This record gives sequence, C-alpha cells and structure tokens, in this order.
Amino acid sequence: MKKHIVLLPGDGIGTEVMEAAKEVLTTIADEFNHSFSYEVHDIGGVAIDFHGTPLPKQTVEACNNADAVLLGAVGGPKWDQLPSHLRPEKGLLGIRKALDLFANLRPVKSFDHLLHASPLKEELVKGSDLLIVRELTGGLYFGTPSERQQNGQSVVDTLFYTRQEIERIVDKAFQCAQTRRKHLTSVDKANVLESSKLWREIVEEKKQQYPEVTVEHLLVDAAAMKLITNPTQFDVIVTENMFGDILSDEASVLTGSLGMLPSASLREDGVGLYEPVHGSAPDIAGQGKANPIAMILSSAMMLRHSFGLDEEARLIEETVESILNAGFHTADLNMKSGQQIGTVEMTQLIVESI
Amino acid sequence: MKKHIVLLPGDGIGTEVMEAAKEVLTTIADEFNHSFSYEVHDIGGVAIDFHGTPLPKQTVEACNNADAVLLGAVGGPKWDQLPSHLRPEKGLLGIRKALDLFANLRPVKSFDHLLHASPLKEELVKGSDLLIVRELTGGLYFGTPSERQQNGQSVVDTLFYTRQEIERIVDKAFQCAQTRRKHLTSVDKANVLESSKLWREIVEEKKQQYPEVTVEHLLVDAAAMKLITNPTQFDVIVTENMFGDILSDEASVLTGSLGMLPSASLREDGVGLYEPVHGSAPDIAGQGKANPIAMILSSAMMLRHSFGLDEEARLIEETVESILNAGFHTADLNMKSGQQIGTVEMTQLIVESI
Ligand SMILES: CC(C)[C@H](C(=O)O)[C@@H](O)C(=O)O
Ligand SMILES: CC(C)[C@H](C(=O)O)[C@@H](O)C(=O)O
Repeated sequence: MKKHIVLLPGDGIGTEVMEAAKEVLTTIADEFNHSFSYEVHDIGGVAIDFHGTPLPKQTVEACNNADAVLLGAVGGPKWDQLPSHLRPEKGLLGIRKALDLFANLRPVKSFDHLLHASPLKEELVKGSDLLIVRELTGGLYFGTPSERQQNGQSVVDTLFYTRQEIERIVDKAFQCAQTRRKHLTSVDKANVLESSKLWREIVEEKKQQYPEVTVEHLLVDAAAMKLITNPTQFDVIVTENMFGDILSDEASVLTGSLGMLPSASLREDGVGLYEPVHGSAPDIAGQGKANPIAMILSSAMMLRHSFGLDEEARLIEETVESILNAGFHTADLNMKSGQQIGTVEMTQLIVESI
Repeated sequence: MKKHIVLLPGDGIGTEVMEAAKEVLTTIADEFNHSFSYEVHDIGGVAIDFHGTPLPKQTVEACNNADAVLLGAVGGPKWDQLPSHLRPEKGLLGIRKALDLFANLRPVKSFDHLLHASPLKEELVKGSDLLIVRELTGGLYFGTPSERQQNGQSVVDTLFYTRQEIERIVDKAFQCAQTRRKHLTSVDKANVLESSKLWREIVEEKKQQYPEVTVEHLLVDAAAMKLITNPTQFDVIVTENMFGDILSDEASVLTGSLGMLPSASLREDGVGLYEPVHGSAPDIAGQGKANPIAMILSSAMMLRHSFGLDEEARLIEETVESILNAGFHTADLNMKSGQQIGTVEMTQLIVESI
C-alpha cells in the first residue's frame, strides 16, 4: 500500500515524539511491504516564528493533498502573550475546520501496570476501556455571532448545529460502537438546551439503523459524575464539541496514563489527523525524556482508521503493551519498579519488538 | 431575630429531609431566641400534580415575600415523560430566574470519616475543602434565540452575558475567597469563547479591588482534570452557568459524601434559596432512610448567608461533624463500621446535641 503522510511536529516535545512515530511507521512499512512517504510542515508556535501565522497556507494545502496527517503538539510559554488570533491553538482549530475533521475519537484504556498512577481507587478504574466520540467542527466553537455587543457591555457566543452535522457524528459513534462492546452513551443537556433536544431526537432516530447497539442518554452533569464513580460502565460516549472537550479531558486522567493516550480527528472520507492527547510539555522538551507512546499509538490509529490496516495497528498496540508489561517505562509514568528509559530507547525497544 | 422562611419540600425524599431541617431550625430558634415562621408551598412534580405547573404563581409570590427559601428536591419517574415545559426541573430554573438567584454556592468538603467512600485515592482527596461559585441565571441556560431554525434543519442556543452579570458573580466569588483561604480560580474557555475573554478581563479588573486574594485562570478542560488529580489545590472556583453545572457535579462525587453536600443560590440583597445537591431519590423515598444532613447543612448556609447568623450556622456544622465522628451514619454513606440509623434518628441526634 502506498500512502502519503504529512507530519506536523509542532512545538516542545512534538518533534521528539514525531521522530519516534516515524521510525515505528518505517518499520511497519518494511515488515508489511507498504510504501509510506512523508512531508514535514509547520503548525503552532514554530509556524508563528517562521511564517507569522499558526497555520500557514502551505500547511493546509499539504494536508489537503495527504492521505493522513500526524500532529505532535502545539503551544508553549513563548507564544502565550500573543493576541488571540496569533496563538498556537488557533492553528489547531483552523486545521480541524479546514480539513472538516468533524469526528474526534479519544480512546481511554487502563493499563494494569499503570493503575498505581491513577487518581482513582484501582478496583474502580481497572478494566476501563471507553471511547469518547466528540463532535469537533460545530457548536460553541464555531457558531456566530461570537462577539462583544452594546459597546462591550455584553457578549455572545453561539451554539449552532445543523441536523446533518449531528447526524454524521451520531452515525460515526454508532459505527464505532458496532466494532466494540455495542453500547452507546449519548451525552447532552436535553433538560435545558434546544440543541440537546434535537441531538437526543436524532440519536433516537438513528438507533433504528443499529439495532445491535444499546443506547443510553445521560445528562452532561451526570456524565461528569459517572466517569469518576463508575468508568467501567462506559463503552462509546458521543457528545457535542464543548461537552466533549471537558469530558474527554476529564476521562484522560482517570487511568493514570495521560502520556499514553492517542486521538484521531476524522473527515467523512477517512482522511484524518492523529495526535497525542498530551500537550507540548515545554518543561521537558529537548531532554529526550518524553514518552513517545501516545504519538506511536496515534499512528496506529492512523493505520486503522485512514488506511484500513487493522493488523498493523494491532501489532503496534500489542507491542506497546508487552513492553510496558516487561517493566519498561518513561519518566512521566512514575512507576515504582521496572526500568526507566528515554524517548529513543523506548522507540528502539518498540521497533525491535515489531 | 424574626425571619419568615418558605419551605418547598418538592418530591421524593424532599419532604422527609425538609422535616428534619425544620426540626433543627426550631431547636436553633429556641436556643438562640430567634423567631422563625414557616410557610409550605409546592414546586416540581407535586406542583404539576396539584396545580398543573411545576412552578405555581403562589409559590413564586410566597418566595418573593420570604426572607429565605428552603428547597428539598424535585423530579421523579412519574413526571419524566411530560413535555419539557411541564417537567419538574422547569420549576427549578423558573424559581432561580424569578428570584434572580444569580450566585450558586456549592461547598465540597471532605470528611475524614467518609474518605473510604471516595472514588479517589484517600491521600489525594483528604483535606479537600473547596467552594464552587457558579453563575446561575445567565449564559446558555437563558440566552435567546434557543430554538430550531430552517424548518428544523438546524438548531441554536445562545450563550449571552452582560458585563454587569459577570461583574456581580465575580465580586461574589472574591468576597467568598476573602472569608476563606484567599485563593480564587476563575474557570473559562478563553482560548475559544468570546464570553470567556470578557470574563477573564473582568476578573483581571476586579482583582485590583481584592489585593489579598490570589487569582489563577484555568481553562475548563484543565479544570475538569485538576479537580480529580489535585482537588486540594482549590479554594474558591468561579465560573459561568454551564461550566459550573458540569464542574460542580464532578466535584460533588470526589469526597464520597454526595448525601452531605448543601448549596445556596443567592440574590444580591442576600435573599437565598438553599437546597441539598442530591436529588429526590425516588428509589428510597418514604422509607425513612434518607440522609437529612445535606438539607440540614443547607439550612446552616441559610442562617449564615441570608440571616448573618454565623455562630448558629457553625454550631449546626460542628454538631453534624461530631455525630459522624461518633460513628453514626445513614445507609447512603456505606460505612464499614459505626452505627447505621434512619432519617428521624439522625435528626434526633443532631437536635439533642445542639
Ligand atoms: C487547544 C483547544 C482549542 C482544544 C479544544 O478545546 O478543542 C484542546 O483543548 C483540545 O481538546 O484539543
Ligand atoms: C435540573 C437542572 C436544570 C439543573 C441545572 O442544570 O442547573 C441541575 O442540574 C442543577 O445543577 O441544579
């Protein structure tokens, strides 16, 4: 299989973990006789430095012509004081919208070896394996008006969705549930918001088409509680953009393995952008300490979701798990025993095991 | 002191815990020579049954003429299928707006004796003592338009705030911080929302007036993480209505004592509505098992915030803590040892200790 991949290392540890993912992909290509070509572009702070904008036109164009995009991380204190249209995060929001990446997939899976690092009691979180499907290009993030009014005496943001935008994310979530434990939790605030009422109606309509999936509706406040008190009850969670932002970050700390979590942001035709959930970690950038696993697992998601290479994806995932089980870990995981190694060694171990 | 209190028992265990709070208040009045008069009105499901609306006019009028309002809980499966304008929650939203209860105060405090019931590791949550100040009458909950558009092909909700609405809640939060550990965390999504940018500006302006309070800004997604990974870092958290709904429910489960948590919803002149954080618990209603402590602590908040009776409030709070320390508890607390008692016995113990 021939595929063209755009790499956006971004800022901080982004470049280090991107290097790791590329090595793993090269190994996979060799093993399975695929041909992956790469093109590197700027986004975020580094793009501000070199091009005066967090999302240069050539970056968007390159992504548009690629089969998939890998993103490291954006942001850092260096750019924190810039005016908001020049902030690294704008690059992230811009690329999502430009590529129409409407579906953000965030799997959260507990690793038995890392449970001691979880803030939750181990017996509660053990066995958690959930997927948050977040709508990523609508809602409060992009609705208009979003502005000051009455001479700065008031302000408005707009939560807007078309029926079609809700339908496609709900479809995506049902499809994900079908490949997993076949349970879908739709999260909304239907006792207050009109948008949530339509959301709930659409979930009810759609469930006829996926009879093997069981559906539950949960209010967002209740969901925020149950993620903590009973995380194993969830399989797939689907929700709108703002709720998804909050709940997926909440979920990301449950298992104690934030440095391990990948994500995918998908367009309808399968083109996608894949990035770790963690940030650019400026405090440890350039020290060779960063955990490359979230980025490597993000590239496994790319193989599965954009290229349909399920076997290859699974091989990466199983290799990562076996290396953790053998006691190897990076500094962030804060393990009591086993052997602590750096970014390069971890990558080498994974590459060799593959 | 002479005060007139409206009691809105509502549904489910609401009537049982209201009875308990009234007994405690009567004891306090006797001890301290106050005169409290009471008037009972309907809200929620019971109001739908008797008056055909979750918020009858006479209820609003009575509340408007009272010095404070105590609310039990609203809702239950009986009314779940009604059209949305006839749902018990509408009574809650209606009374907040009718009385202009803009400031929702939700203290979350860990009780050492209940930490085994916390989903978090005990060493992490021990010592947590935070207060969420949630804006309660603006934002997405009340902005217009909030409707279907384009023949049902799209839908919109509106997050609207006036500068004055933000100023008064921020002031309230600073004032709360001054009486506590003098640290304020303002939660917003200023990297995306215009309303959050204005919010952040106003917090920055206001902090000049409260020089002894240290201020930190936190994005809502980061706040959802830190509440779990480091709850003891917070003192007062201030945020807008929707974020506050999610974060305060998230925070309510951290300490394992949801059945203990009170809340206050205040108007600028100090009139307030006080209610437990827990719901109407239809599954245990009428069985004498309900934990009355959240309602009793809510009435302590009333004494403090609406009547300025700090000593009386503190007496109730200390009495509750001493009874828990002595090992007495209701069924919800799921204690390993000590003595399990019912609503009436728990109330009796508190009344006698006072
Ligand atoms: C950086 C920010 C705009 C972004 C978001 O809110 O979507 C981030 O929090 C995320 O979840 O990817
Ligand atoms: C019942 C509901 C409308 C309400 C809210 O969202 O405000 C509740 O969740 C609360 O927090 O008091």
